[in-house]
Amino acid sequence: MSSERLAQQVNFIVEIDKLKQIKRQTYLTDASRHENSVEHSWHLAMMTMVLSEHANDKDLDLSRVIKMVLVHDLVEIDAGDTFIYDEKENGTKVAREQAAAERLFGILPSDQAAVFRDLWEEFEAGQTKEAAFANALDRFQPMLHNIKTRGKSWAEHDIRKSQVVGKNRIMERGSECLWEYISGRLEDAVAEGFLLE
Amino acid sequence: MSSERLAQQVNFIVEIDKLKQIKRQTYLTDASRHENSVEHSWHLAMMTMVLSEHANDKDLDLSRVIKMVLVHDLVEIDAGDTFIYDEKENGTKVAREQAAAERLFGILPSDQAAVFRDLWEEFEAGQTKEAAFANALDRFQPMLHNIKTRGKSWAEHDIRKSQVVGKNRIMERGSECLWEYISGRLEDAVAEGFLLE
Repeated sequence: MSSERLAQQVNFIVEIDKLKQIKRQTYLTDASRHENSVEHSWHLAMMTMVLSEHANDKDLDLSRVIKMVLVHDLVEIDAGDTFIYDEKENGTKVAREQAAAERLFGILPSDQAAVFRDLWEEFEAGQTKEAAFANALDRFQPMLHNIKTRGKSWAEHDIRKSQVVGKNRIMERGSECLWEYISGRLEDAVAEGFLLE
Repeated sequence: MSSERLAQQVNFIVEIDKLKQIKRQTYLTDASRHENSVEHSWHLAMMTMVLSEHANDKDLDLSRVIKMVLVHDLVEIDAGDTFIYDEKENGTKVAREQAAAERLFGILPSDQAAVFRDLWEEFEAGQTKEAAFANALDRFQPMLHNIKTRGKSWAEHDIRKSQVVGKNRIMERGSECLWEYISGRLEDAVAEGFLLE
């Protein structure tokens, strides 16, 4: 083991500590504060372990899904969290995140940089069965938190049900079952008055 | 898929959101605030991905290590985080955490409860090669954070170098290389005046 290699790895470990400070629009389920991108990523990994039987494809490489959700938001250290309903910010998201990936993964030894980059690119492309399920969980989790907080984040941004459906229906590609579950709750949310029709 | 089974799984997903509010004694590497147990767990999973080549055993089931570190602190939702240097609290830790495991994993369908319980018990026992490496990372991370914050948490609790070595040397069982790296930094910490001799 070269000490330079270990030093690069430790530098990366310390650098990614910053993701704990990237605030998301989503609230904790008790509505006490916003969550951060690390908390969100951990939650998706736990969801992978608990909910994978509901993926469309029953033959998933779960280890790859877990790794993908753990790394999928690292680029936000430089690029910040882009709110899914913010059309303007989403226009520049790809360029900002590509530059972030270049810098951040570049801290690692090159063989490991390539591994992380591949996981992130696969998640972003959303084409493999693992990426489709990972992306479904990435949509499911904030919707669940909104439902548990009676639409706290939706209300702050005047989000309508048609927007929620429009942005999140893509979940069906990874899990029709989880989309059916969560979209059923959207009906209730409108009926109970915490999501705009 | 039974809707009762999915409801149990979602209940668990919502319940474990509470781990985001369990404060640890460790500070973020920029010393701005304490970290919580979810942030710590995610960081260990990332360390598994980056540092596994430094495990004593080169033939690890990394997927199992990652799952183990992701779930290892769930019991703290009920039992709280027990500071490694608090001898009194450590005397009651096992009983508190066993009760927590019973309640928390019991929210899941029984087959999944058994999977989570096994992962947690394996981590706690520390006997398999995967658990030995997971435990090594669990010691390495707070030491690294202390070094980056010039001993902020050590200073708050008047921790001496002999205590740090005494409590953490067990890391050698999982990774002699990482123990060598981090214990070398302890010498520097004493020399630079931020760890008591």
